[in-house]
Amino acid sequence: MNDAVTTRSIVVERTLPHPPEKVWRALTRAELISQWLMPNDFQPEVGHRFTFRTRPMGDWDGVVQCEVLDAKPHERLRYSWVGGSPSARLDSVVTWTLTPTDAGTHLRMEHAGFRPENETAFAAMSPGWFRILERIGDVIEADEA
Amino acid sequence: MNDAVTTRSIVVERTLPHPPEKVWRALTRAELISQWLMPNDFQPEVGHRFTFRTRPMGDWDGVVQCEVLDAKPHERLRYSWVGGSPSARLDSVVTWTLTPTDAGTHLRMEHAGFRPENETAFAAMSPGWFRILERIGDVIEADEA
Repeated sequence: MNDAVTTRSIVVERTLPHPPEKVWRALTRAELISQWLMPNDFQPEVGHRFTFRTRPMGDWDGVVQCEVLDAKPHERLRYSWVGGSPSARLDSVVTWTLTPTDAGTHLRMEHAGFRPENETAFAAMSPGWFRILERIGDVIEADEA
Repeated sequence: MNDAVTTRSIVVERTLPHPPEKVWRALTRAELISQWLMPNDFQPEVGHRFTFRTRPMGDWDGVVQCEVLDAKPHERLRYSWVGGSPSARLDSVVTWTLTPTDAGTHLRMEHAGFRPENETAFAAMSPGWFRILERIGDVIEADEA
């Protein structure tokens, strides 16, 4: 990796009217994640490798290869996110940070590591993550646990 | 402020082949800042109020109202950034973080606080900050100090 490259991140933040425990469930239960993101075989264990799978688009096979890098219950979740077209592979990291507030939980999502050649992915995912954060609220709302 | 609103940030990171002291100069000397951003009356003192001024665009008067919130030499600089059109006022914060590396300095810029009504500003400034980070490198290169 050439450190001289300029990289960009997508950051979206939202305060949810639910305690961190309930937000954490939505971020870490495979069946709940699939409701706001993509089908997956996620498990909240450091070192666990998993994939997100969606329909292939262009020269991308629709698979995101991930590995859990950090999982501190109710506080912080971090996984690598590698995918995209072979000609512009996206080698990135997603970090979720949960902070309790009087009203519930402040949720911050940072997707870091977009290099200049990942411009197409950045342009697509920047509004995409915004909508996903809105959707997480609906999934938590519907989660009876 | 309604905490339930989803906000976005722009984050751009770059490693520069210069020590933090030299990067800090470029971020805190008014005459150097004006070379990579806009004319200004910045001073690196917490509580100092200053403005960036550029040509008016649409219903924006071209003025950004700022206040220094944090200034730890060679490490961290933070200022509020309030401006934009009266109908979609941008109430935001810019944070610069400098981390020494073997090769020089890792520089991270985060511009936080874009609400849904600031979509136009977000769309314009997201590629804008990318170019600005590239430009800072040129300004440091040309700075003889």
